[in-house]
Amino acid sequence: MSFGTVAIIGLGLQGGSIGLAVQEHLPGTQTTGYDLSPAHRARAAERALVHRVCETPAEAVENADLVIFCVPPGVMGLAAEQVRDALPARALVSDVGSSKQAISKALGEALPDHMVIPAHPVAGTENSGPDAGFAHLFRNRWCIVTPAARTDLVKLSELVGFWEALGANVEIMTPEHHDLVLAVTSHVPHLIAYTIVGTASDLEDVTQGEVIKYSAGGFRDFTRIAASDPTMWRDVFLSNKEAVLTMLQRFTEDLTALQRAIRVGDGQALFDQFTRTRAIRRSIIEEGQDDSRPDFGRGDHEAGVDAAE
Amino acid sequence: MSFGTVAIIGLGLQGGSIGLAVQEHLPGTQTTGYDLSPAHRARAAERALVHRVCETPAEAVENADLVIFCVPPGVMGLAAEQVRDALPARALVSDVGSSKQAISKALGEALPDHMVIPAHPVAGTENSGPDAGFAHLFRNRWCIVTPAARTDLVKLSELVGFWEALGANVEIMTPEHHDLVLAVTSHVPHLIAYTIVGTASDLEDVTQGEVIKYSAGGFRDFTRIAASDPTMWRDVFLSNKEAVLTMLQRFTEDLTALQRAIRVGDGQALFDQFTRTRAIRRSIIEEGQDDSRPDFGRGDHEAGVDAAE
Repeated sequence: MSFGTVAIIGLGLQGGSIGLAVQEHLPGTQTTGYDLSPAHRARAAERALVHRVCETPAEAVENADLVIFCVPPGVMGLAAEQVRDALPARALVSDVGSSKQAISKALGEALPDHMVIPAHPVAGTENSGPDAGFAHLFRNRWCIVTPAARTDLVKLSELVGFWEALGANVEIMTPEHHDLVLAVTSHVPHLIAYTIVGTASDLEDVTQGEVIKYSAGGFRDFTRIAASDPTMWRDVFLSNKEAVLTMLQRFTEDLTALQRAIRVGDGQALFDQFTRTRAIRRSIIEEGQDDSRPDFGRGDHEAGVDAAE
Repeated sequence: MSFGTVAIIGLGLQGGSIGLAVQEHLPGTQTTGYDLSPAHRARAAERALVHRVCETPAEAVENADLVIFCVPPGVMGLAAEQVRDALPARALVSDVGSSKQAISKALGEALPDHMVIPAHPVAGTENSGPDAGFAHLFRNRWCIVTPAARTDLVKLSELVGFWEALGANVEIMTPEHHDLVLAVTSHVPHLIAYTIVGTASDLEDVTQGEVIKYSAGGFRDFTRIAASDPTMWRDVFLSNKEAVLTMLQRFTEDLTALQRAIRVGDGQALFDQFTRTRAIRRSIIEEGQDDSRPDFGRGDHEAGVDAAE
């Protein structure tokens, strides 16, 4: 393992999970960490998310071979500026942000003398903060690494090895392509989920109590996604504006077509659309990217709870 | 228990689950069943979804005290016509359809001399067919019963008791209100999920393989919902057209507002919207309508699989 000390800036879901995963999978590696919130630092220390929780970002990075910024996309540049003077010249700079073009630019500008290789582990839950992380978050998930054209290949392979050690599969692509792919597999789905949950909250003729009671009809799945961290998601949409707007336009056209099919009673168009979406689900399960149990295994869990009663 | 014999027409997810639940919770009750598909009848018999799988709908209902139609909304009337001559006068007629105004009308017209009390258990998974049912599907879920104005209150209380015996909580409302509530908690979410999965399949600059690989960013949740039975969902949208179009209009307005916020860079509007949607999630979990484990407990399950390896 090439990184003797890994510094983690931001000890939420991603940062905390990296800290725990490094301690589990790379026992020779030292981990340091910093979080802007004193309460989060205290909790991170209690949970031992990293070996040493530091009181300043400078202290956290002073001996780092790799520093990973795990802060919301909008403050990546600011967080990087705060470590500039303390960060060893040898240190590789990376991150876990959900958009890559804007973050690559921000990190590169803040740390012009360091090698920056951005990355994005496509893994998470709806939870956030220092209690949210767990060591196997990245297992069998994909981590997308988006090197610039003039990237040091040795550093690149070290970063790839690091994520593989944490259990992830690594894919390399350009920041531009990353932002387009994630717009459709993550950003637009989140925006839609936030929207429908908001729509349901605002109705006059259906009460919030009814929305909650009858949420098992499908709505509850959207509420899980819409419980994700608001700050991070605000920044994702602001930092990947162009790709998100492009994909939203496509989505809206497709929704309008289905809406028209409902209005004119075109059952065949609805049936055809509803049939072809099943194949993608099958592939996702076959490739180990989701649980094959019906209803995400909710029934199994409930059965388990009952059995234990 | 007031129903000596319960006949189930349609032995898919709902019908099969009712058959299994009755056998578990109401041991004194006889169950008969029929499915249009010979292969499904054979499989239903193998799984013993009901005590007796019959070769015709008439045979299935000939001694019924309660007949429950568990077929797609669009063929409820047709299925009811097929049992008219064989159904005892005393038999109560009900169903499990996801829209209620259209189905109430269809059942009432097909069986004008019988008491009809429509119902809708708000419970399900993405699976369908005779292998999909399980006995505890209805446990701690809501079943909405939508009696007409001139309903026999004794029959109504028997039907309520039946669903409560199967583990459900029962709520009574008008068919009109049901259709509005379900449009927002179930129908529009399904339409949106079908749409985004279709949009993702049609892109030129993002491959289907990429969509599958990086689906853990949120998209995979939508693919589960979009794997639901196409025939049933076609019929739901055609039979609840007005409420679905009304709710879609509201959703589209809200989505357009967020789209504009992204375009003009209004981070505060995004943050405010993303913050207020968390409360609904908390209430859904508090009221036992969803699993509180992060990411629907996918991580726990994966950990379990690994532990068993």
